[in-house]
Amino acid sequence: MAAKPLLPVSDALDAIKTSITTLPAERIAISKAHRRYTADIHKARLSHPASDVSAMDGYAVRSEDVVDLPTNLKVIDESAAGKPATAAVQQGQAIRIFTGAVMPKGADCIILQEDTIKQNSHITIAEASDAGKFIRKAGQDFKAGDVLIPAGKQLTARDIALLASAGIDEVLTLPAPRVAIVNSGDELVEIGITPAHGQLVNSNGAMLAAMITAFGGEAVDLGSLPDKSGALEHLLHANGAFDLIVTTGGASVGEHDHIIGDLQNHPQSKVNFWRIAMRPGKPLIFADWDGVPLLGLPGNPVSTGVCALLFVQAAIAKLQGRHLQHDICSARLATPLPENDKREDYIRTNLSVCDDRVLIATPAEKQDSAMLSFFAKAGGLIIRPPFAKALGIGEEVQVIRFPTGF
Amino acid sequence: MAAKPLLPVSDALDAIKTSITTLPAERIAISKAHRRYTADIHKARLSHPASDVSAMDGYAVRSEDVVDLPTNLKVIDESAAGKPATAAVQQGQAIRIFTGAVMPKGADCIILQEDTIKQNSHITIAEASDAGKFIRKAGQDFKAGDVLIPAGKQLTARDIALLASAGIDEVLTLPAPRVAIVNSGDELVEIGITPAHGQLVNSNGAMLAAMITAFGGEAVDLGSLPDKSGALEHLLHANGAFDLIVTTGGASVGEHDHIIGDLQNHPQSKVNFWRIAMRPGKPLIFADWDGVPLLGLPGNPVSTGVCALLFVQAAIAKLQGRHLQHDICSARLATPLPENDKREDYIRTNLSVCDDRVLIATPAEKQDSAMLSFFAKAGGLIIRPPFAKALGIGEEVQVIRFPTGF
Repeated sequence: MAAKPLLPVSDALDAIKTSITTLPAERIAISKAHRRYTADIHKARLSHPASDVSAMDGYAVRSEDVVDLPTNLKVIDESAAGKPATAAVQQGQAIRIFTGAVMPKGADCIILQEDTIKQNSHITIAEASDAGKFIRKAGQDFKAGDVLIPAGKQLTARDIALLASAGIDEVLTLPAPRVAIVNSGDELVEIGITPAHGQLVNSNGAMLAAMITAFGGEAVDLGSLPDKSGALEHLLHANGAFDLIVTTGGASVGEHDHIIGDLQNHPQSKVNFWRIAMRPGKPLIFADWDGVPLLGLPGNPVSTGVCALLFVQAAIAKLQGRHLQHDICSARLATPLPENDKREDYIRTNLSVCDDRVLIATPAEKQDSAMLSFFAKAGGLIIRPPFAKALGIGEEVQVIRFPTGF
Repeated sequence: MAAKPLLPVSDALDAIKTSITTLPAERIAISKAHRRYTADIHKARLSHPASDVSAMDGYAVRSEDVVDLPTNLKVIDESAAGKPATAAVQQGQAIRIFTGAVMPKGADCIILQEDTIKQNSHITIAEASDAGKFIRKAGQDFKAGDVLIPAGKQLTARDIALLASAGIDEVLTLPAPRVAIVNSGDELVEIGITPAHGQLVNSNGAMLAAMITAFGGEAVDLGSLPDKSGALEHLLHANGAFDLIVTTGGASVGEHDHIIGDLQNHPQSKVNFWRIAMRPGKPLIFADWDGVPLLGLPGNPVSTGVCALLFVQAAIAKLQGRHLQHDICSARLATPLPENDKREDYIRTNLSVCDDRVLIATPAEKQDSAMLSFFAKAGGLIIRPPFAKALGIGEEVQVIRFPTGF
């Protein structure tokens, strides 16, 4: 029997995006909203400033009273920030005013403190500024109802201040999907335990938790699973609700790969696809587990990481309803690449910029998917389509650059 | 009396860096170390792989037994991931092996599962791979003692996996300084409260908390302080230990500016400098409060934000012992700029890239330091040195680009 052709990477991504349903937006306190994405436009509830205010320390006067200088005005009241004057300025009068304080009625001009001489309850004015100068007009920054922040914006610290100053205390944001991490493999010991002969430290759990956080999800690491039939169901059953389940290992064809078996045998589970035309990442599984999407990643840490970048990130973006845009750019090869076979190849590469600002890609000599040291140093992945021809030094390749924190 | 010349920005930065003492490095669990900076090199405690392991599912054999094909070998044991075989392979024998499992003694060659036919306890081998192929050699990724991560690296998710796989469970990191935030102003109401006439929502607290987090600090927002003499001492006294105190407002010369007064009057406080040759940010204070450095920022939110970028970030970096490098680049002006006066000017600007990849800076029309809406939209700050000459459209300026999350 001819082997079924492996699913192309783009078809795998399409299947993930099509079958995952976007979660509802989440309303959160503005103090928690830093770096979250807005799910809607946000309009000002208040104008800023709410009233005309002084931009300086000085005196609020009528401009017609300071045409002929020097002149002498009577100080009748004070307007401080948060404590507006109650009186209005009338002919021959001034009101002491401080930065940020509301302009008193009747006044249209600020005289700077340093341009006055004070004697008891009067000031002598030597120099006057133009009417309106040093006055921040009501709504000068924004008016109630103005759109301050568009939908889909990742909120900065400055955006938080802008929203707060507009009277907004909650923001409608794209959700942070809850993602369960399950690592499988009898050889795994947890971080902090010295592995016995033949054992390995579980490095995938901590790596995926950090990646999922960087992708905008909330990671819940459920620890390691033994290579035993039925173990996945047992673990997930005991651990509440998730929006996405990510497993590692147990996805290959060996007798000790139980994740795929558990998915195929569980009555409420449906395997959407298994095995794709990709290197690393061929054993990738995408399934539905009692209504929750499940991505089964290969267990070699480089395969796990590359599949997280492509598929876990895409799944989280779809759960959020966000358009995912990879940072893809052209680079020139520093070493040749052989022609590619039928699997789309994602080649770990160093990236550097040469004198004329051209990006140079230097692929790792060994592309073994268990080798973490180069993966940690790499700047991105060269994408080699199936059957791509051999390339020489200086020829152009497309590179996905790793996102911040990845 | 001639006014004392204002302190230049570079002298203010030097004073901050000189007087702040770097905190000790912090040892933290690797699960908390994502995005933290390493304080030292980190060497592998274990080799990876620890032993020679198989990269595939198949059979471990002696290469000399598979020279003449087809051949027939007896399967005497199994080596699975985490469960090494106890037997050694002798002439005419094979051991069943799975991906990631330890190579049995005596074997130097992996026969792929798909190149064999199994009958009871024997396999017939139709095709053999070269000795060593599909075997991951001990220490191939890294050896115990290898330097895996340099000092001063911000840890990615991949770095976390690399360290975990090397048997490291704690990382020596640059500390996250504890930074107190104190906002002052009788006009301020907290987020969620509707301001009365003349009042404002305190937007600086939430903005600074987000910025301090983005700069690598741990922000503790102590809320707002009334414009009352002695209030600062009262609040700080009640709130434990900090590595840095950041105040906003109360730094100007008005009668209601009590922060500077409290600092000048408190017996254990020493004002290092007050007022600098900068726009916005002139009223900046740098003081020592019972041994803790204190930055007094102006209260207008744009001034607060710009001073946070320059001075709070520099103070946090010095507390960490980290070299701070701003993202400074050249841009061409889209609109002219007038000549500058004696204060170094930090002009809010939009940044865009034109067709020929040149960065274009479009300064905000109004540079009012109370206007948050443009500040939130801006991409950076044009730096205008004191007495810089007027510049026309297309002329070159230097721009600090805002960091992620700012």
